[in-house]
Amino acid sequence: MSKLSSALLAMVLACGLCTSAFAQGDPLPSWNDRKAKQAILDFVGKVTRDGSPDFVPPEQRIATFDNDGTLWAEQPVYFQLQFALDEVKRLAVEKPELKDKEPYRSVLARDVTGLAADGGKGLQQVMAATHAGMTTDAFTAQVRNWLDTARHPTKQRPYTEMVYQPQIELLAYLRSQGFKTFIVSGGGVEFMRTFAEKAYGIPPEQVVGSSGSVTFRLGADGKPELLKTAKVEFVDDGPGKPVGINRFIGRRPILAFGNSDGDLQMLQYAAAGSGARLALIVHHTDADREWAYDRESPIGKLDKALDEGKTRGWIIVDMKADWKTVFPTR
Amino acid sequence: MSKLSSALLAMVLACGLCTSAFAQGDPLPSWNDRKAKQAILDFVGKVTRDGSPDFVPPEQRIATFDNDGTLWAEQPVYFQLQFALDEVKRLAVEKPELKDKEPYRSVLARDVTGLAADGGKGLQQVMAATHAGMTTDAFTAQVRNWLDTARHPTKQRPYTEMVYQPQIELLAYLRSQGFKTFIVSGGGVEFMRTFAEKAYGIPPEQVVGSSGSVTFRLGADGKPELLKTAKVEFVDDGPGKPVGINRFIGRRPILAFGNSDGDLQMLQYAAAGSGARLALIVHHTDADREWAYDRESPIGKLDKALDEGKTRGWIIVDMKADWKTVFPTR
Repeated sequence: MSKLSSALLAMVLACGLCTSAFAQGDPLPSWNDRKAKQAILDFVGKVTRDGSPDFVPPEQRIATFDNDGTLWAEQPVYFQLQFALDEVKRLAVEKPELKDKEPYRSVLARDVTGLAADGGKGLQQVMAATHAGMTTDAFTAQVRNWLDTARHPTKQRPYTEMVYQPQIELLAYLRSQGFKTFIVSGGGVEFMRTFAEKAYGIPPEQVVGSSGSVTFRLGADGKPELLKTAKVEFVDDGPGKPVGINRFIGRRPILAFGNSDGDLQMLQYAAAGSGARLALIVHHTDADREWAYDRESPIGKLDKALDEGKTRGWIIVDMKADWKTVFPTR
Repeated sequence: MSKLSSALLAMVLACGLCTSAFAQGDPLPSWNDRKAKQAILDFVGKVTRDGSPDFVPPEQRIATFDNDGTLWAEQPVYFQLQFALDEVKRLAVEKPELKDKEPYRSVLARDVTGLAADGGKGLQQVMAATHAGMTTDAFTAQVRNWLDTARHPTKQRPYTEMVYQPQIELLAYLRSQGFKTFIVSGGGVEFMRTFAEKAYGIPPEQVVGSSGSVTFRLGADGKPELLKTAKVEFVDDGPGKPVGINRFIGRRPILAFGNSDGDLQMLQYAAAGSGARLALIVHHTDADREWAYDRESPIGKLDKALDEGKTRGWIIVDMKADWKTVFPTR
């Protein structure tokens, strides 16, 4: 063995219990060296350093992330809605007699953006037809099949490649520093759980989302199964987010990351706890690499939370300036 | 819990990277060497051994435990009900004018067992008066204060010492083997979270329970707070248990442990999954050290689940014969 490799081996052995795999490298290589990145590093440093006045024990290092627009893209429409629309089309091909019935007729005749802007009865019908009346296992299989085959309408990539590389790094960095990372999103909890573990390293039990009622029954073969119904049970958005955090996590996060007015109350709740706190907002400013939108957008509207964030000193992440890379390179 | 067992538990918890703290000793010293203990050891061995045909990856090693009667005692009445009754008495002392009002008058005039057997309007009033109309933080403080000061009416021990020593060992053993341990109980989720981490090593985010609606608001000082209301939101009992597991955990457990008919559907759901599964029931057979009750008991009735458990080969733990120790020694 050469002296060099001996030295390297000694270093590796000495590092058996290192809390950070990133001790010698940049844990956030896709973040530009600007204020947002520094604020994250400073915050993580002070809550994890032994003897720091801001030290937080590992079990209290709870970090919550919105999903749509914060961990993956949400344009031109929320991807879960795109799933529902694609499912309607698939069902109409499978059963041509459906083509003249609602909501199939509307979806097949109308453009995607129009239906999203409507936000009313048609949308509810689409969601019910594609999210209810099947077992939870069957629904999961449909979502997985869609994620494996569907492509984003303009970027032409699988939806699971529409995640943000800087956020993947941030999630991994936080976990390496003893944080427990959660999704807290208005999206459907069962939809997100199908990909969150693979895409973000976040297991199903750390995904908080909106949900419909589910009913337990013994199936025809006597085996237990869970049936999804069309009844809305919980909307994990706006003031529902701190309620969802309380219900599912039972601890107040010390770090929260959102991108829209639907995240305002989660950010307020996290920021108002005692001790060190970090609240962050992704501001979509990058029309070239992603999309640029805020106060007027029907999807991911960022207006009140942008004002309050500036007033309160929350970190406003400027996607164009702060992120070296947006999507993962293949 | 005794100082010694607290210290041992702390050691086990601190040993996050050990694959097994128990490799050289008996991981379940408070279990007698009988069929139930062997079934647990066999099951854990075969799902964790590399190359075993029954191997289960760590992230799928989900274990769910009922709380009342499974992790701690539940006689003469559920401890959460005892908390509510004690709170009513405390409030009536603080505000003597309440003594002539319901539910204070009934509680003060009637015996505990009578009120529990009633199960109707009076009980609902007691629960509303003691579990709603305050912030989640204020409720947590009340429960903690009660746990610190109250004593069990016949055993004269703090309620947190009414936990079962064999189960504390089992929970720690499962975690040392890569399992994630959850409570899935009909008890109130916010009530259980106040002691589950210290008593069982189960963090708040791994406690699933019944809940009332909670409302987000900005308090008088502009600070966000969560207000508990009297509206029942979710009953995590019977068929509600698999529904709760789906909602909060999003994975089917491979091991489930209960003690009453309220656990039947959770046990069915866990046992019916593919691959190796273990379903267990505590049978309360020990009138000397604990209590003996099953088919006729108003609290923790075990009738249908006992029959189905015997038919299906679930492990029926005979407390008197299987447990060397019931409660932790001081």
